[in-house]
Amino acid sequence: MRALEELVGLLTRLPGIGRKSALRVAYHLLKADDSFAEALADRIRDLKGSIVFCSVCGSYTEADPCPVCSSPGRDRGIVCVVEQPQDVVTIEASREYRGLYHVLGGLISPLDGVGPENLHIQALMSRLRSGEVTEVVVATNPTVEGDTTALYLKRLIEPTGVAVTRLATGIPVGGDLEYADRLTLARSFRGRTRL
Amino acid sequence: MRALEELVGLLTRLPGIGRKSALRVAYHLLKADDSFAEALADRIRDLKGSIVFCSVCGSYTEADPCPVCSSPGRDRGIVCVVEQPQDVVTIEASREYRGLYHVLGGLISPLDGVGPENLHIQALMSRLRSGEVTEVVVATNPTVEGDTTALYLKRLIEPTGVAVTRLATGIPVGGDLEYADRLTLARSFRGRTRL
Repeated sequence: MRALEELVGLLTRLPGIGRKSALRVAYHLLKADDSFAEALADRIRDLKGSIVFCSVCGSYTEADPCPVCSSPGRDRGIVCVVEQPQDVVTIEASREYRGLYHVLGGLISPLDGVGPENLHIQALMSRLRSGEVTEVVVATNPTVEGDTTALYLKRLIEPTGVAVTRLATGIPVGGDLEYADRLTLARSFRGRTRL
Repeated sequence: MRALEELVGLLTRLPGIGRKSALRVAYHLLKADDSFAEALADRIRDLKGSIVFCSVCGSYTEADPCPVCSSPGRDRGIVCVVEQPQDVVTIEASREYRGLYHVLGGLISPLDGVGPENLHIQALMSRLRSGEVTEVVVATNPTVEGDTTALYLKRLIEPTGVAVTRLATGIPVGGDLEYADRLTLARSFRGRTRL
């Protein structure tokens, strides 16, 4: 069935969806109300049209500048630097952070040919020049690329007098020592805190 | 972001897709080419319009009767009875079976209020009355409902002189005795074959 195969072919190009999951989704759509498939098709088609990048911080938003950048209630003295726009959504969901954001659009990765000049680092430096910001929290993933990028930013930003911090690495809450890898354990020792 | 949330809300109604997977899919769509989202939306919208149920066997098809029912190369003496249309696709993919199909549209399940009268059993009996069929292979899942339905069909069909068989249950190929459940092991003993 060509129509089914074409849909399955497209679905398997989505992240985390293999052929079996794609088939399950396709069969579900076949059984579901027409209105459901219609609504899903409409939302997929309209998504990119209604979401843009914030011209200040680079995160996804429906109105530019984004609600965070334009909110009077956010702490303008602290900027959290993240790799991708969706990281902003993840951090916002934790409701822990009340400052601003800056999206790099990637991480320094010489193997992939990504250098500092390919990231939104100049825009970050311009924002810092206003003098309002006193701390930059680097919230890149604790990977080789994330650590490299964090170190690069630290060397670039610290001479301007702005403090550079990094999210703590360690054993996840509810995690199990037994399942923590060696590096995570090592880092959780180095970063141990007084009770 | 309303557009994102609406899409995520619809995606989580699909089987096997939770909120995290839905978000990953939505972000992927945001980053992907416009043409990909367009194509996906089109295929989802068109799917139900281009696929119908075969009027003979009840499986999904683009042309009625389906390619299996209208093929001169299939063995018309044997009918494989399955629960749902997608089971036909699964069995066809194994390239093992060369007979015809009949989709019941469900299984007998008194707890869910599904009795034989809710399934396409009358249509099956009409097909058998032609006299061409000599064997019915019941390929329902080896579950309580699947077994109940198989027994019901056996009692109904055997008096007409048509043989009723059932797919073998046992340890899956490449499986491990250690991980086989007690019932599967018991059945694989009862169904043991001579080497």
